Amino acid sequence: MSLAITDHDGGIRVLRLQRPPVNALDPALVAAIDAALVRAVDEGCSAIVLAGGPKVFSAGLDVPALLALDRDAMRDFWRDFLGVCERLARSPVPVAAAIDGHCPAGGAVLSLFCDTRIMARSPDPEKPFRIGLNEVQVGLPVPAAIQAALRRQIGARAAERLLVAGAMVDSDTAERLGFVDALCESGQAEAQALAWCRRHLELPRQAMLATRAMARADMAAIFDTYPDDIESMTDVWFGAETQATMRALVARLQAGRN
Amino acid sequence: MSLAITDHDGGIRVLRLQRPPVNALDPALVAAIDAALVRAVDEGCSAIVLAGGPKVFSAGLDVPALLALDRDAMRDFWRDFLGVCERLARSPVPVAAAIDGHCPAGGAVLSLFCDTRIMARSPDPEKPFRIGLNEVQVGLPVPAAIQAALRRQIGARAAERLLVAGAMVDSDTAERLGFVDALCESGQAEAQALAWCRRHLELPRQAMLATRAMARADMAAIFDTYPDDIESMTDVWFGAETQATMRALVARLQAGRN
Amino acid sequence: MSLAITDHDGGIRVLRLQRPPVNALDPALVAAIDAALVRAVDEGCSAIVLAGGPKVFSAGLDVPALLALDRDAMRDFWRDFLGVCERLARSPVPVAAAIDGHCPAGGAVLSLFCDTRIMARSPDPEKPFRIGLNEVQVGLPVPAAIQAALRRQIGARAAERLLVAGAMVDSDTAERLGFVDALCESGQAEAQALAWCRRHLELPRQAMLATRAMARADMAAIFDTYPDDIESMTDVWFGAETQATMRALVARLQAGRN
Repeated sequence: MSLAITDHDGGIRVLRLQRPPVNALDPALVAAIDAALVRAVDEGCSAIVLAGGPKVFSAGLDVPALLALDRDAMRDFWRDFLGVCERLARSPVPVAAAIDGHCPAGGAVLSLFCDTRIMARSPDPEKPFRIGLNEVQVGLPVPAAIQAALRRQIGARAAERLLVAGAMVDSDTAERLGFVDALCESGQAEAQALAWCRRHLELPRQAMLATRAMARADMAAIFDTYPDDIESMTDVWFGAETQATMRALVARLQAGRN
Repeated sequence: MSLAITDHDGGIRVLRLQRPPVNALDPALVAAIDAALVRAVDEGCSAIVLAGGPKVFSAGLDVPALLALDRDAMRDFWRDFLGVCERLARSPVPVAAAIDGHCPAGGAVLSLFCDTRIMARSPDPEKPFRIGLNEVQVGLPVPAAIQAALRRQIGARAAERLLVAGAMVDSDTAERLGFVDALCESGQAEAQALAWCRRHLELPRQAMLATRAMARADMAAIFDTYPDDIESMTDVWFGAETQATMRALVARLQAGRN
Repeated sequence: MSLAITDHDGGIRVLRLQRPPVNALDPALVAAIDAALVRAVDEGCSAIVLAGGPKVFSAGLDVPALLALDRDAMRDFWRDFLGVCERLARSPVPVAAAIDGHCPAGGAVLSLFCDTRIMARSPDPEKPFRIGLNEVQVGLPVPAAIQAALRRQIGARAAERLLVAGAMVDSDTAERLGFVDALCESGQAEAQALAWCRRHLELPRQAMLATRAMARADMAAIFDTYPDDIESMTDVWFGAETQATMRALVARLQAGRN
C-alpha cells in the first residue's frame, strides 16, 4: 500500500505518501489518495494531514510509468489527477500539507490545493529544500486550474514568473512569496501540521467551518472557472516536444542510477 | 455623544470614537458613525479621518449590549453595521483610519473599508498592538463582504489563514502583510492620518478623485458581488454555538472586572 | 529614428528608445514602438527586449509636444498609446523591459505590460532610481486599463495607494512590492534582460509558450474588461485642471533649463 494512514486524537487523520523511493505519483497512488480523502470525510474525520516523505514530499508524476500508458489510460490519469486537486480544493474539513523535503511538480500541485503548507528547512543550508511547478522544464504546459491555484496563493505576477520559467524556489523564498505558509525544522513538518489542525479544532467549530467555506470558495470555484480540457492535455502529452523531453529526462535518470 | 467631531483646515473632518471604556460598537454608535459620514459628505468635507481611542481603536462589537437585543433589533444591527462598511467603501472622499492601539474585530472591519490604515506601534515592544478579524474565536462566522475586503487588502491566501484562525497580528506583521499601510509612534496615528489627508488634498483634485474612484471601484463592488444574507446572519447569531461562546466571553469579561 | 533596433542570437530583438534627452513619448515614438513590435513578431523574433536610456528609461509622455495637439490628434494619441500597451499585453513572445534608470509615468506604463521588469540600482544610493505612475501629480487621471495592470502586478491595495498619491518609489521598494521583478547594477539592465530572454528560450518552447499564454491571459483580458473611453480621456486632457497643471509643469521645466 503506497499510502500510510494514521488516526490521531480529535479525529485528525494523517495520509502519508509512502511509495519509495520518492513518492512518484502513478495512477495507483493518485487513486489511493483520492479514495483516502473520500473515506476520511465519510468517516467523520475533523481534519486531514497530507504528508510526504522525509527529504522528498513527492517527486511529482511518475514519468517512466506514465510514458508506458496508452492514450486512454493517460486521459484517465489526467482526469484523476485533476480530480484529486478538486477534491482537496472542495474538502469540507481542513487539510494541512506537511512538506518535509523537496516538493517539485505534482507534489507541489497537491499541496497548493490544501488549506495550508508547512515546509521544513533543510538541515544543510547549502542544499535548501525547494518547491515549485517545474513542469515547463520537463516539456509539460501547466494546466489552467493549477495555474489558477498558484496565482491565488502568491499573486498573478509572481505566479506568472515562476510558471513560465518552470522555476523551483528554496524554502525561505517560498515562505516570503506565500508559496508556503510556515517553515519548520527538518523532520517536524508532520508534527507542525498536526499542531495546526489541533489549533483549528479548538475553535468554535461552526464559526470556523462557515468562515473557512467562504474563505475558500474561490479555491473551489477554480474548477468551474478554469475547466481544463483533458482531451487537449492528452494530445499535448503525446506531442513530439513533450515526449522527447520526457524520454530524455528518463534516460538521464536511468544513467544517473547506473 | 459617543462620537467627537472636529474640523480641521482644508475641509478635513475627524470622527473620533469616544465611547468609554473601549469604543465598543453598539447600535447607537454604529448609527452615529453612519450619520456623521453622511453629514461630512453633505457638508462638503474634502477628507475624513476615522479615529479610535488611545490604546484601543475599538474593541469591536458591544457583545453584552447585542446579546440583549431581540431578533428584529439584531437584524437591524447587522444591516446597519454592514451599511456603515458600504458607506466607507463608497465614500466619495478619502477616509483615513487612525489606529492608535489594539484593533480587533468590528474595529478592524471598519478600518478595512477606509482608504488607508495608519497604525501606532505600542510603546511597550513586549505588548505590541494587535489588529485582526478574530470573529471565529468568539463564535461568529465572518460575513462574506468583510472577508472580501480583507482578501482585497492582503490577498486571498493570507486572508484565508487569518480569517479561519480568527487570528490577530501585531502591528509589524500587519504592515508587512498590508493589513495596515503605515506604522507610526504611539499617540501619533491621528496626526499622521491628518498629514496623509493633507498630502492628498494638495494633489490636482479632479485627477486624484477620478483615479481614486477607479482604484476603489472594486471596494464598492464588494457589496454587489458578496451581498450578505442578513437573515442568515441573524439565524447564526441566535444559534447555540454563537450564543454559548458569546455568553462565556461576557462571563469572562465580567469576572475579569471583579 | 527614435528607436534603435538590434538583433541578437537566438532571435532576440532589442528595441531601444533613443529620443534625447529623456525618451519622451510623442506620437511618432509611440507609433515607432508599435510598428517595431508588429515587425518583430512578423519576422519571427523569439523574444523582445524593450530598453530605455541610461539614467532614464523614458520620462513619460512628451507633455510639451502633446499640449500642441488639437483634439483629433490627442484622441489619436490616446488610442495609439493604449494600443501599444495592449500589443505588449497580447504579445505572442516574451518581452522583457530593461529599465536602466528613472521610470516615471508613461515609461512605467509600457513596462507594466511586459513579461518582466528588470531595473538597475542607481550608482548613487542617495539618489535612487525611481519608478511609478505619477500621473495624478501632473493632473492626469490614470486610465482604467493601466490601473488594472498595476493592480495585477502588485495587488489592489498597494496599487490604490500608489495610484491615488501619484507616488514614485525607489528601486528597492519597487522590487519589494513586485513593481519590478529583479534589480541589477547600473548599466546592466539590458544585459540582464537579454539573459532573461535566453534562459526562457532554452526551455521546451511549446510548453513555455502554452504556459505563458495561460499565465498572461489575464493581462490580455484587461483590455476587454476595462475598455477605456478615449473620448472621455480626451475631454479630461482638455479640461481646465489638467491643462493648467500641465502648463505649469512645462513652465517649470523650461525655467529649469534656462
